[in-house]
Amino acid sequence: MANSNGNGKNSAPQGITRTPFPGSSKRYIPGKLHNFQVPMREIKLSPTKTEKGMEENPPLCVYDTSGVYTDLNVDIDLRKGLKPMRRDWILKSGDVEEVDRFYKGKAAADVEVFPGAATYKPLKAKKGMNVSQMHYAKKGIITPEMEYIAIRENQMMEERIEKGRFHKGEGFGAVIPKVVTPEFVRDEVARGRAIIPSNINHPEIEPMIIGRNFLVKINTNIGNSSVTSSIEEEVEKMIWSVRWGGDTLMDLSTGKNIHETREWIVRNCPVPVGTVPIYQALEKVGGIAEDLTWELYRDTLIEQAEQGVDYFTIHAGVLLRYVPMTAWRRTGIVSRGGSIHAKWCLAHHKENFTYTHFEEICEIMKAYNVSFSLGDGLRPGSIDDANDDAQFSELKTLGELTKKAWNHDVQVMIEGPGHVPMQLIKENMDKQLVDCHEAPFYTLGPLTTDIAPGYDHITSAIGAAMIGWFGTAMLCYVTPKEHLGLPNKDDVRAGVIAYKIAAHAADLAKGHPAAQRWDNALSKARFEFRWEDQFNLALDPELAKSYHDETLPADGAKVAHFCSMCGPKFCSMKITQDVRDYANAKGLTEETAIEEGMKDMSKTFADTGAEIYQKV
Amino acid sequence: MANSNGNGKNSAPQGITRTPFPGSSKRYIPGKLHNFQVPMREIKLSPTKTEKGMEENPPLCVYDTSGVYTDLNVDIDLRKGLKPMRRDWILKSGDVEEVDRFYKGKAAADVEVFPGAATYKPLKAKKGMNVSQMHYAKKGIITPEMEYIAIRENQMMEERIEKGRFHKGEGFGAVIPKVVTPEFVRDEVARGRAIIPSNINHPEIEPMIIGRNFLVKINTNIGNSSVTSSIEEEVEKMIWSVRWGGDTLMDLSTGKNIHETREWIVRNCPVPVGTVPIYQALEKVGGIAEDLTWELYRDTLIEQAEQGVDYFTIHAGVLLRYVPMTAWRRTGIVSRGGSIHAKWCLAHHKENFTYTHFEEICEIMKAYNVSFSLGDGLRPGSIDDANDDAQFSELKTLGELTKKAWNHDVQVMIEGPGHVPMQLIKENMDKQLVDCHEAPFYTLGPLTTDIAPGYDHITSAIGAAMIGWFGTAMLCYVTPKEHLGLPNKDDVRAGVIAYKIAAHAADLAKGHPAAQRWDNALSKARFEFRWEDQFNLALDPELAKSYHDETLPADGAKVAHFCSMCGPKFCSMKITQDVRDYANAKGLTEETAIEEGMKDMSKTFADTGAEIYQKV
Repeated sequence: MANSNGNGKNSAPQGITRTPFPGSSKRYIPGKLHNFQVPMREIKLSPTKTEKGMEENPPLCVYDTSGVYTDLNVDIDLRKGLKPMRRDWILKSGDVEEVDRFYKGKAAADVEVFPGAATYKPLKAKKGMNVSQMHYAKKGIITPEMEYIAIRENQMMEERIEKGRFHKGEGFGAVIPKVVTPEFVRDEVARGRAIIPSNINHPEIEPMIIGRNFLVKINTNIGNSSVTSSIEEEVEKMIWSVRWGGDTLMDLSTGKNIHETREWIVRNCPVPVGTVPIYQALEKVGGIAEDLTWELYRDTLIEQAEQGVDYFTIHAGVLLRYVPMTAWRRTGIVSRGGSIHAKWCLAHHKENFTYTHFEEICEIMKAYNVSFSLGDGLRPGSIDDANDDAQFSELKTLGELTKKAWNHDVQVMIEGPGHVPMQLIKENMDKQLVDCHEAPFYTLGPLTTDIAPGYDHITSAIGAAMIGWFGTAMLCYVTPKEHLGLPNKDDVRAGVIAYKIAAHAADLAKGHPAAQRWDNALSKARFEFRWEDQFNLALDPELAKSYHDETLPADGAKVAHFCSMCGPKFCSMKITQDVRDYANAKGLTEETAIEEGMKDMSKTFADTGAEIYQKV
Repeated sequence: MANSNGNGKNSAPQGITRTPFPGSSKRYIPGKLHNFQVPMREIKLSPTKTEKGMEENPPLCVYDTSGVYTDLNVDIDLRKGLKPMRRDWILKSGDVEEVDRFYKGKAAADVEVFPGAATYKPLKAKKGMNVSQMHYAKKGIITPEMEYIAIRENQMMEERIEKGRFHKGEGFGAVIPKVVTPEFVRDEVARGRAIIPSNINHPEIEPMIIGRNFLVKINTNIGNSSVTSSIEEEVEKMIWSVRWGGDTLMDLSTGKNIHETREWIVRNCPVPVGTVPIYQALEKVGGIAEDLTWELYRDTLIEQAEQGVDYFTIHAGVLLRYVPMTAWRRTGIVSRGGSIHAKWCLAHHKENFTYTHFEEICEIMKAYNVSFSLGDGLRPGSIDDANDDAQFSELKTLGELTKKAWNHDVQVMIEGPGHVPMQLIKENMDKQLVDCHEAPFYTLGPLTTDIAPGYDHITSAIGAAMIGWFGTAMLCYVTPKEHLGLPNKDDVRAGVIAYKIAAHAADLAKGHPAAQRWDNALSKARFEFRWEDQFNLALDPELAKSYHDETLPADGAKVAHFCSMCGPKFCSMKITQDVRDYANAKGLTEETAIEEGMKDMSKTFADTGAEIYQKV
């Protein structure tokens, strides 16, 4: 079964990444209301050398999406899947029951099926019950998921207190609480301002929350290849995404064996999984959009809900009458889901079936706690098409549907663009908040220019950081291969890191104290030439270290009090130490130094200056 | 002498890059007031296939910084330097004279010296004359540089008119004119809102302008290696920077042979060159800041002015009394120039000599038309230190100095941060405009988070795009190696492209019609599957093409009407064509389609919805 990866007692299948981050270890924080352990990544730091001796730097706890894959104390067997931590919590509610599988599909003979998948009995809400987190929240119940999230978001809040300034953020209505309590989580979910995507059939996840009063999250996408690769290869794509910081994962597979591949991913995935069910539905009708039917689509939803998909992208806002509004666009309809629905609507001259059957969809969602990700099928595909009538008409409809979903206590987030120049970004956020009643916004980028294919992780990280600051709760990543081809592992890493940067920059701008604590720790390490600490605190420790080593490969350099940019004599950071010594020697405090510095000396200068000028 | 590069009649030294961009050729636009040819890059586009046959797509003219290196009709000999186009213009003014070289330094025996450099007679303003562009502008004179810039900024404005929407920009006070006239250029320079860095001893440049009512510019940095490499290698660093889009170049060399290396660069450089003269001054005193003197510094300024350096970074705002204000910062003083001056001030307990001798410096500047780049020696080096009293006190002083320089008609731009979280960026721009009387702002980034060493081209492109939009005139690039080591060619390319993205995104947001025209052309090509056009219109055509070819390498794929992301059946762009056909068949126009689409159908839905709900 599982092969040893050479780490002694820790076994891992070959081909998946399990290396912990350098200088880091897992720290587990126990729940108080419920019985669980919340994992964090703790980065150990070396002490600062001062004149008075060594000064300790406390370790830094950061939010960790990598799951047990970075905990070598945990045995992993992809053919067993992750430990279904939440199953007990869910059963304990008394609201669910095991049912026979609705899905009757047969796997192809040459496909390896997840062991037990065929005989597994999925969970479903008992008749008349509603197992959505919003339903519990509205009833005043703090679920284990809610407490778990409060601890997770806090990142050891009690360690946040430290010396130094903290910048006031601008939240545009969002307010990051000083301490995230389980009750705060519950309240945000009850109001619909945040969602906890957590299908009762995906008990393996480490619960997380998407809402603008929490850390900004990022989504990554994977899709299976048409050429069947090994199970390890498919699962590794997911592990790689969460390793670098993916908070959720969308499986956008098309082609063969979608069901079986998804099973492997869901059973081994520690983060919520989303899909666009219309993709699989289209496969079932051989790629002919006109042949789609509501019944076939509905069955696909149930099939995926039973497997444990945590949220569905549903393009219910692509209305027949909106479709012609896109005809004169520069780039028409660029959403795959949007164009499938548009084609169907046109072919039958009928309204979008996900819109007309929306209430039935809600009934399915609440029986498994699947969340809506209401798709923006009419999002702009170019700068020119941004913020047009088609886009904003659909957004209004998504807002109407949000209310309908909330009547069922079904959780909702709203998808957003796309391609938007900077000056039009805020309008997207503002309209979304009003039209969609503060349901979380989940945007793709936006790309702030179209002229840099090959660098769209950057064109879009600019827009993502801004819209994250303005209030978007989750950012869908874009890789350098966007518009050009399928991303490889390097592209995925580049895309995830670009989006972690955007999300973190947004957290900082909103005034998140834990976010700034991280920057402060890295900057202090940088200033004190604690090179290894600087690498270990970086979003991508391996790359940072390798870049440094290209110029100064000697091990001595990594403890040296200078860097390659300036050399030993020419170091600005070294000179700053002299400034500190000077200020101390002069007995200047921070306050007196500033007072002294801001004295108006312009008169003195005017005199001196005038004198000099006369000499010339 | 020059070796053939294998392009037939076109010869080029080996080791420098001369390949024109694919699908592109040089287009030269003649002046009307003055006799010159302004180079542009013209990108040829293939026609669109429509039902009615082929529809031409006009070629796109874009701003070109690459100089004659991308024109294979021009012979290049690094040992002769570029054609000194501006020399005639300058001589014609009658305001200059040849003088004996002030600089008496001798090159080391093993250093190859630019031929003729030792005997060359530099130009200088005649006694009592002022050759700054601002001086001419204030006198109402439209210099050849001004007309050249007007044509260059326009990018064939008459070709801008095209169908389709154009987004209104938000300029925060900046207004991009529909047509840039020579008079507009003159007026902006006279007001001090824009500068034309153009030393009379750097006649090789293609004139350019830095101001917030023009295209946002980017600066790149190079520094010579301490290990002497070949002349070709040193010059290639510069050629590589301008190839990808660098508008100006700072030579930040330290170590040996600074003078000789700079000569090679300036003589072959088609863009303005800036330096930080204190670096070379420090070399002259063996790296001991305390040993610096005003006289030695002054002589360095004259030496560099005679060579043709177009702007000097001078940290005249680092005042003695501001220095202790940095003592309690998280990262003290991180500017090299700032820390050198700080150290000198502390050691002598005297005011910064560039401040006390500022008027004398102005006298030097105006004799050669060297521009000030007033350095932000106290810029923040971390998120925590952003927007503090030290930084803003210095900025106020830079504003005072701006007025003093303007009294001499000396051109000024102001350097800015640094590390700034998003919510504090606008304050920087707003304060700079007020305190520095609208002199152009030239910022380094700013980096919007500290936690991503290895990706600081991205952390800073976010801040750069935003501050460019808010009004910064030039963005100093940051490479992925920032904080870690010295950039190689790949890093330079990555940094330049990230900054071209930031600058272009800012131009778009300000409503620059030529900027959006470029996006529109690329998006149209993308939508119509004109793959080669899409690559050729990209900021980095080679990379875009190579990414595409990784997935679909066959030549057929590049003309195919689908892409690797969706495949032939599943293509959203193809479906959009159906939408257009449908709208046309129904006789819907853009207006009627929108009217139809926006009809309030919520009542209809409420009825349907209610009905469905009752059935469940």
